[in-house]
Amino acid sequence: MSMSPAMKIHEARGVSDMEKFFNPSSVVIFGASNAKFNLGAMICKALRDAVQYPGQVYAVNSAGDDVAGAKGCQALEDIREDIDLAVIITPASVIPGLIQKCGARGIRNVIIESSGFSEKGEEGRKLQNEIDRLARFYALRIIGPNCLGVLDIERRFCCMYGAEEIVSVLVRHPGPVSYILQSGGVAELVGERLMDDRLGVNKMVCIGNKSDVNEADLIDYFDTDHTEVICVYLENVKDGRKLMRAVKKTRKPVLVYKSGKSEAGRAAALSHTAGMAQNDAVFDGACRQAGIIRLQSIEELHALPKMFTRMPLLSGNRIAVFTTSGAFGSVGADLLAGTNLVMAEFSDETKSRLSRIPGVFNAANPVDIGPAPPEIYLEIYNILLTSGEVDGMLHLAGMWRDFVQDVMQALVGFCRRQRKPAALYAYNSMGKLLAARQEKELPVFYTAEEAVRALEVSYQQYLYLDKKEEPLWKP
Amino acid sequence: MSMSPAMKIHEARGVSDMEKFFNPSSVVIFGASNAKFNLGAMICKALRDAVQYPGQVYAVNSAGDDVAGAKGCQALEDIREDIDLAVIITPASVIPGLIQKCGARGIRNVIIESSGFSEKGEEGRKLQNEIDRLARFYALRIIGPNCLGVLDIERRFCCMYGAEEIVSVLVRHPGPVSYILQSGGVAELVGERLMDDRLGVNKMVCIGNKSDVNEADLIDYFDTDHTEVICVYLENVKDGRKLMRAVKKTRKPVLVYKSGKSEAGRAAALSHTAGMAQNDAVFDGACRQAGIIRLQSIEELHALPKMFTRMPLLSGNRIAVFTTSGAFGSVGADLLAGTNLVMAEFSDETKSRLSRIPGVFNAANPVDIGPAPPEIYLEIYNILLTSGEVDGMLHLAGMWRDFVQDVMQALVGFCRRQRKPAALYAYNSMGKLLAARQEKELPVFYTAEEAVRALEVSYQQYLYLDKKEEPLWKP
Repeated sequence: MSMSPAMKIHEARGVSDMEKFFNPSSVVIFGASNAKFNLGAMICKALRDAVQYPGQVYAVNSAGDDVAGAKGCQALEDIREDIDLAVIITPASVIPGLIQKCGARGIRNVIIESSGFSEKGEEGRKLQNEIDRLARFYALRIIGPNCLGVLDIERRFCCMYGAEEIVSVLVRHPGPVSYILQSGGVAELVGERLMDDRLGVNKMVCIGNKSDVNEADLIDYFDTDHTEVICVYLENVKDGRKLMRAVKKTRKPVLVYKSGKSEAGRAAALSHTAGMAQNDAVFDGACRQAGIIRLQSIEELHALPKMFTRMPLLSGNRIAVFTTSGAFGSVGADLLAGTNLVMAEFSDETKSRLSRIPGVFNAANPVDIGPAPPEIYLEIYNILLTSGEVDGMLHLAGMWRDFVQDVMQALVGFCRRQRKPAALYAYNSMGKLLAARQEKELPVFYTAEEAVRALEVSYQQYLYLDKKEEPLWKP
Repeated sequence: MSMSPAMKIHEARGVSDMEKFFNPSSVVIFGASNAKFNLGAMICKALRDAVQYPGQVYAVNSAGDDVAGAKGCQALEDIREDIDLAVIITPASVIPGLIQKCGARGIRNVIIESSGFSEKGEEGRKLQNEIDRLARFYALRIIGPNCLGVLDIERRFCCMYGAEEIVSVLVRHPGPVSYILQSGGVAELVGERLMDDRLGVNKMVCIGNKSDVNEADLIDYFDTDHTEVICVYLENVKDGRKLMRAVKKTRKPVLVYKSGKSEAGRAAALSHTAGMAQNDAVFDGACRQAGIIRLQSIEELHALPKMFTRMPLLSGNRIAVFTTSGAFGSVGADLLAGTNLVMAEFSDETKSRLSRIPGVFNAANPVDIGPAPPEIYLEIYNILLTSGEVDGMLHLAGMWRDFVQDVMQALVGFCRRQRKPAALYAYNSMGKLLAARQEKELPVFYTAEEAVRALEVSYQQYLYLDKKEEPLWKP
């Protein structure tokens, strides 16, 4: 195969290449059939039922059968209409042939969900090299192989299989958080958690072996769409400089959890998506330099983004702890001691204002108060957040179940007006509050640890943006 | 007041003193009235409605009114029947007088829930000294002051206020886990979590300022009852040697979370339950010596006990990671690398047995397999746990929702028969599994981190018991 004219276009790859992965007018699913447990059929079903995709879907299978609303055909040649995107979920061995057909036909976006490539030894590596070569020749962009594909809530497109239940819930809550995940399993976890913790998802992409499209391409793309927070799970980084360039370019927070911290973890990752995981200290240094917020647990992928989308950034490190239990005051102070945040020191005036409020046990920091009516809580928030002595609040309080939702909602509004965040947690009315998290989109955290981490990462993003801020005018 | 004859009896305090705090035939509530928001009335209501306490309840209030099923009277003198226990929830100032009356009447067990004692400065300290003196004079045992009191699920007694909803759920699931909590707020958190994570509670005691009865007394007592795991939240330790003696005496696991690790945390604790929190390193050393399992988060108070009650102890450090997602294999290996547990090394025979199973991607550790039917999973568990190369399993797998509960249940039974534990976690069917956690009492963990901690503490307890094991026969 000689150098193709497309090769030149290919050099100018960019953000525009990504659009049809998420917003195709038509899609063909290779390998979708009516056989039992057929994964392609699950995709057709998800398109029809879970997201009610408005575009045209074709299913290619040997019988040419229609599959769950998708128009059946025996080969690509049978489709006369334009095709924006090909999704391939067939045995690996036939995929090079399919890519060739897609390329010749002018399809420029292909998602390969099948496994059996570089994660599967020498044989698989050869196969992956072959599709790489073809992709370059035809100037195709490929997501995968060995991945779960794409979900776009805003444009109602989904080619993930086995996630119908989750997608049906997520699609009802479009929002500003986008995910780039180098693992279908992690996508399942995040999706499962998001059924309860409804952040509002914009897009989710599983990138698998990332033979072509990688996290950097997608960060660039998410910098141009309605995404407000970018969350990433990685097992390896193939092009560190490109990743750093992409992260440095965006002002949106980029949260990354990377597995393979330990040697055993790296060995395990190798057998999964087949990339060499880098030395962890090197990656850590790169994160600090590029402004990547490195997560400490997979759970933080769903837990922390709400702090960015629903609360102003933390623009200083002085934290007031508010509690209705001395125990949690003590726990809060302990947790803050492990961060670069500090317990705010209150002036005599603030202390005396607080101590005049009935029920206040402790007018220093942590502020500790007994059971009280809602207006008392709000008065304390007002004193703390307008004092000029506090940059943010750690809210570890228990409250009467009847009004905890309303108080939290009022506090969120107040925080936004004051441009100072509070990390919300309540130890005694979790059930009520988790319900409110869903219904009223309250940024409530599940543990005190999560709440403290939320303040920590918010401050990290603030410091990063502050440092990179350019002068308003350059002569 | 001179030395009383009771003083001598008092010297021989012991476990038998505790019995009537939990299992009284009759109880008087000082301060229970029909006033709005009256806390004593909440206790009367909890006794009648939430636990359906079978004993006799008296409510002492100035009007002598009956309160929520409790027989009303104006003073203790009006009650002619025997009284086993007095619960006091009146203003602090009148409490010394009440103690005197209780003492004279022969009541030997008093729970003081009111605040306003040593946590409230000089005045309060004096008041607490006064009740201490009276308690010694009358050989009374006191729980509190400044506490939420006691819950006994087995004997259906409860004098906690404001927890009716939680107690109504807990009472339906009696079990082997008992709690000693130096904070009502922590009791509320633990109770709230246990509504979902039904461990089966035996008893719960809030000890507040612990002027008399402390954690050591209760550990001694829980060593004699149906408790199997003892969970403790502490802000300070008043008598370290007594605590260590109590823990060393029991073979039951004692799990302790102590706040006040940092200086700021200790300062906060001081304003709460008024004990001086000790240097953290000293406490840590004492824990190691006595065999206390020190918890890393308040959440572990409810998360970890199930590993002791539903699974055999981990008797070696070789862990097999089982997963259906390479990502979680890598995460599991990373998490184990932070503990004294190791990734088990499989013999060639074990690897070859595993690799013969259809769908197995990786026959080394972590074992990674694609979607499979239940019998395949069970075959792998069998190979791993009978190999002689594995002491326990970290189960980080996603499964088809339809059978995940059944597979987990079968695995629990198999673990018990093999006397090797598995820490259970599933990333893709959390909802189903958390439901099963309730219905089928499956020891399922909420995060991968929790699952790894469960193995870690199980092994810690095994090592401790192993070390303290005495010879079967002493000449």
